[in-house]
Amino acid sequence: MKLLASLTLAAVVSTLSVPAMAQFQKPEDAVKYRKAALTVMAAHFGRLGAMASDKAPFDAKVAAENAAIVETMSKLPWAGFVAGSEKGETRAKPEIWTDGAKFKKASEDMMASVAQLNAAAKTGNLDNLKKAFGESAKTCKACHDAFRKE
Amino acid sequence: MKLLASLTLAAVVSTLSVPAMAQFQKPEDAVKYRKAALTVMAAHFGRLGAMASDKAPFDAKVAAENAAIVETMSKLPWAGFVAGSEKGETRAKPEIWTDGAKFKKASEDMMASVAQLNAAAKTGNLDNLKKAFGESAKTCKACHDAFRKE
Repeated sequence: MKLLASLTLAAVVSTLSVPAMAQFQKPEDAVKYRKAALTVMAAHFGRLGAMASDKAPFDAKVAAENAAIVETMSKLPWAGFVAGSEKGETRAKPEIWTDGAKFKKASEDMMASVAQLNAAAKTGNLDNLKKAFGESAKTCKACHDAFRKE
Repeated sequence: MKLLASLTLAAVVSTLSVPAMAQFQKPEDAVKYRKAALTVMAAHFGRLGAMASDKAPFDAKVAAENAAIVETMSKLPWAGFVAGSEKGETRAKPEIWTDGAKFKKASEDMMASVAQLNAAAKTGNLDNLKKAFGESAKTCKACHDAFRKE
């Protein structure tokens, strides 16, 4: 059953449009990598959030730069959810490996919304950014609620 | 003197071609961010290294994807070396803040070599990749030797 779950996730991950497949020596390396990718993404997403919520002045160039980084980063973490990396210093829930199809859908929703966020940021219009940021934030939250421990 | 060093680094950092300036709530956030950016960069750089050293089969597409990510990541860590972030869970040496000009040069050398690595990877030629990888690795090592604790 565990093997089946692993194989299923491997199949799921291999169909994600990640730019580079994982090659981690140890599961801990995969955990460290995916957390790092999410940390970088969160930092740049947060800067967009500050502008989207009027807590920071809107700067179209800075918004576009941050959104481009967010989109690049959005494709990376998934390769780090390899079999055997559900243990250790991670808040990943077991459902990532036992319900791979749902996890894949959540990751795809996030990547799609972030691609739209990047497109919105490129328009240089704050209202577009606000709307797209809100949609993206929903996909972050949905995945965290389902697949991340408190 | 400490203020002067901070101001000097701030001036240095502001001239780096980073795509998004830092806005960290706490110095620890800056430390976490720069380490995360370097972790992601190292993972993808390592995959290029495996191909460059014939430990992994050469795949031009995978090499180009990894090199593109490395170049994107190479621009990010510097914004995390903010004043006050020389303490805590970091191997950063104080020289980063006391010899900002040298640190800036080291960061520029790395970014330049990584841009060349990305260009080399795009040629789809393994010999080009090997040469450019070697040059990039030197700039990593030079900065680590000077500015990272063992």
